[in-house]
Amino acid sequence: MLQNLGFDNLLSYWIDTGISGSVLATTDAAETEPFVITAVLLSLIAVYIVSKLGGELSKRLDLPPVLGELVGGVIVGVSALHFLVFPETGATASDSMLMSLVQSFGHLDSAAIAHVFETQSEAISILAELGVIILLFEIGLESDLRELSKVGYQAAIVAVVGVAAPFILGTVGLVAIFHAPVIPAIFAGAALTATSIGITSKVLSELGHLKSTEGQIIVGAAVIDDVLGIIVLAVVASLAKTGEVDLLNVVYLIVSASAFLLGAIFLGKFFNQSFVAIADKLQTRGALLIPAFTFALVMAVVANLIHLEAILGAFAAGLVLDETDKRKELDRLVAPIADILVPIFFVTVGAKADLGVLNPAVAENRTGLIIASFLIVVAIAGKVVTGWAVFGQPGVNRLAIGVGMIPRGEVGLVFAGIGSASGVLDKPLEAAIIVMVILTTFIAPPLLQMALNGQPEESDAPEDMIPAVEMVSVED
Amino acid sequence: MLQNLGFDNLLSYWIDTGISGSVLATTDAAETEPFVITAVLLSLIAVYIVSKLGGELSKRLDLPPVLGELVGGVIVGVSALHFLVFPETGATASDSMLMSLVQSFGHLDSAAIAHVFETQSEAISILAELGVIILLFEIGLESDLRELSKVGYQAAIVAVVGVAAPFILGTVGLVAIFHAPVIPAIFAGAALTATSIGITSKVLSELGHLKSTEGQIIVGAAVIDDVLGIIVLAVVASLAKTGEVDLLNVVYLIVSASAFLLGAIFLGKFFNQSFVAIADKLQTRGALLIPAFTFALVMAVVANLIHLEAILGAFAAGLVLDETDKRKELDRLVAPIADILVPIFFVTVGAKADLGVLNPAVAENRTGLIIASFLIVVAIAGKVVTGWAVFGQPGVNRLAIGVGMIPRGEVGLVFAGIGSASGVLDKPLEAAIIVMVILTTFIAPPLLQMALNGQPEESDAPEDMIPAVEMVSVED
Repeated sequence: MLQNLGFDNLLSYWIDTGISGSVLATTDAAETEPFVITAVLLSLIAVYIVSKLGGELSKRLDLPPVLGELVGGVIVGVSALHFLVFPETGATASDSMLMSLVQSFGHLDSAAIAHVFETQSEAISILAELGVIILLFEIGLESDLRELSKVGYQAAIVAVVGVAAPFILGTVGLVAIFHAPVIPAIFAGAALTATSIGITSKVLSELGHLKSTEGQIIVGAAVIDDVLGIIVLAVVASLAKTGEVDLLNVVYLIVSASAFLLGAIFLGKFFNQSFVAIADKLQTRGALLIPAFTFALVMAVVANLIHLEAILGAFAAGLVLDETDKRKELDRLVAPIADILVPIFFVTVGAKADLGVLNPAVAENRTGLIIASFLIVVAIAGKVVTGWAVFGQPGVNRLAIGVGMIPRGEVGLVFAGIGSASGVLDKPLEAAIIVMVILTTFIAPPLLQMALNGQPEESDAPEDMIPAVEMVSVED
Repeated sequence: MLQNLGFDNLLSYWIDTGISGSVLATTDAAETEPFVITAVLLSLIAVYIVSKLGGELSKRLDLPPVLGELVGGVIVGVSALHFLVFPETGATASDSMLMSLVQSFGHLDSAAIAHVFETQSEAISILAELGVIILLFEIGLESDLRELSKVGYQAAIVAVVGVAAPFILGTVGLVAIFHAPVIPAIFAGAALTATSIGITSKVLSELGHLKSTEGQIIVGAAVIDDVLGIIVLAVVASLAKTGEVDLLNVVYLIVSASAFLLGAIFLGKFFNQSFVAIADKLQTRGALLIPAFTFALVMAVVANLIHLEAILGAFAAGLVLDETDKRKELDRLVAPIADILVPIFFVTVGAKADLGVLNPAVAENRTGLIIASFLIVVAIAGKVVTGWAVFGQPGVNRLAIGVGMIPRGEVGLVFAGIGSASGVLDKPLEAAIIVMVILTTFIAPPLLQMALNGQPEESDAPEDMIPAVEMVSVED
């Protein structure tokens, strides 16, 4: 739009919008502040209503509640009601039903409502990020380090096969069948690699299978997958930028990621003692919770600082604190915080997923849909085979392990976003990756439930009310 | 700065900063996103460390922990370390130690770090706002309507006198002696009104006088005081917004605040049944917490929409849900959420309070110091007189009742925070209120002990771990 404006228009454009933007922090912010709070509160109310409705409906249909939370997000999001939309999907304040409500209530001008929209979107995204950090912290608390190390080799094999198979199948297929150029094909292949640990572990927890052999292999593999995925991303991103791979950077990433996870667990054994000693000495409210939560945040920041995902740090913190005798009390304290923060993450993921790219009535979607179908087949097949890479575990449910690795979630979207921003991916390929991410995310929970159906469910109604570890440990 | 720039400079200024600002939502935001998360996580780590250190130190010095949290905030904030600063106090990214850290780590340019600073500040402010909403929800949950009616007219008289006397003395004194403008004077007078129920009941419990006639009257009056204080807050905050003393508006606010609270409580009696029925039907995680929390948010928004403070809605929601048989479970579930969100509020209030204006070495600060001394005298005298309002209780320790009403605690800080955010309070007056809160909280325990002739202590360490109402009910 800007290039069509004349010089005078350009100047007045900046004076109208730019100046108000630059002084926002000192004057406008104070005026729009109450509306930002109202907008955030309304967003949260929407999140809780749709996540509870969706979750309960899923539960009634014998599906994992998290699926209902995702669908609830889709319904309030960019694909349907447009109540809760985000700038990442190209939406502006005028696309948001919530913002129209706030605007008509507060009689705000377009600059003010744009500020409210941006701030509310950032705030909800940050709350969602805190939600996924708490989720992985809780999963870490529920995962048993000794159980995990028992299945360590199997998890590593599953992870490596689960990265290599879809990557090779996807890249070769795109070049051979669709005659795609090599670098975009490699990028799309890379987008197929990383399992979403958040969705898989939530489903496992909901089904009461987090502590089973299958559950531990899946969680372990998903964690290693996340690390591998970040390495793959760094590799293909540098490929996209320079056309060649920076080997030194790859080595650095592999070493730092491994050193972080192993170092955290190793040092954690010593920290455990100090942690318990500190918590026992504190006499004010939150004596146990605040040190534990602070530790999770510190680990998340450290992970961030060495270019890993924050959630890996939170997961490692949970693993470490799981080894203390405060574990049960901590589970009980973290559960309500997870209850209010985690739904924000899942509803936000659903709200940001634009299912419009799936509409076959739009001609330009069709190429994308054909490529998407191919990517989905590869995404599923490439992960399902991983179950058969497990060795030395007779009677293990191989299908469940493979299916558990299917959901791509937010990690795949990161690939699509970076690929699109760097210009490597054209529109159909980007849309195809997004469709693949959405579909694998949505089909994995019911598929995993079906795959685990052969095995006895540990209990029925009340387990969702109690952190999964409680139920599991009761029966161990 | 802008007015000094020539035309060419202005144009290039907008092209350099304005354009990158305008496309922030689509490109820069994605690039700065990880740094925003890192900045928010680092802020939270700082909040938890200083609030825990401060709270524990206070506890060791036999002072209320909330005092230490506030002082912790002062230490990381604009008055001392400048680690956590906010645009409201006129700070920019370059004033923030935290931002310097993030900038040097991420190699961000000044536009990017300005965006990170703004977003991080907004996010922490929103989390602080959620913190005070949860705090008032919890206070509502801990306030017992039946206890309130038992202590009867004496408590009500003490409460009304204890609100009216400091309010009138403070407001009239500020206008008459210090020639303060009317609205800030009313706001400062209002900040003198509300007794802290948490601090008062804790102090009484420590002195072993919770069940005495004096103790019962003080606790009852503190509960009513909380309600009156919130109505007063709603009135003066709205006055601050419109900028003038409109008698019709005052009447409207008093009527709507009372109608809202009483209506919420009245309708709540019916809603209670549906609430319990809904919570009992839900089968997924957060079956009780999510409906309760959503109810609190809805009430907060409704209060907002009729131009009252959001916290009034949260308090009413707490009062209503306190009447259900889910109360104890709800207390247990809300406590961890309050533990992680409430410190963000207190530390933020401390961090935003510029105590530098109270430095007596600077000549222009002396007004603030004189005002602070005046407010402290009024804060003490205005509450001490309430003891002589008690009737039909021969031999009652009137001085003890008056002294028991002195501590202002978190409610006074809510006034300071909102007054500062809305721009009504200038820096000296805001700092004077905070000094008043700190001092009344400091001197109340020894004064009360003196008034009660140094009775033996009943218990020691564990009461801080338990919500105040729990202690009260245990000892009833």
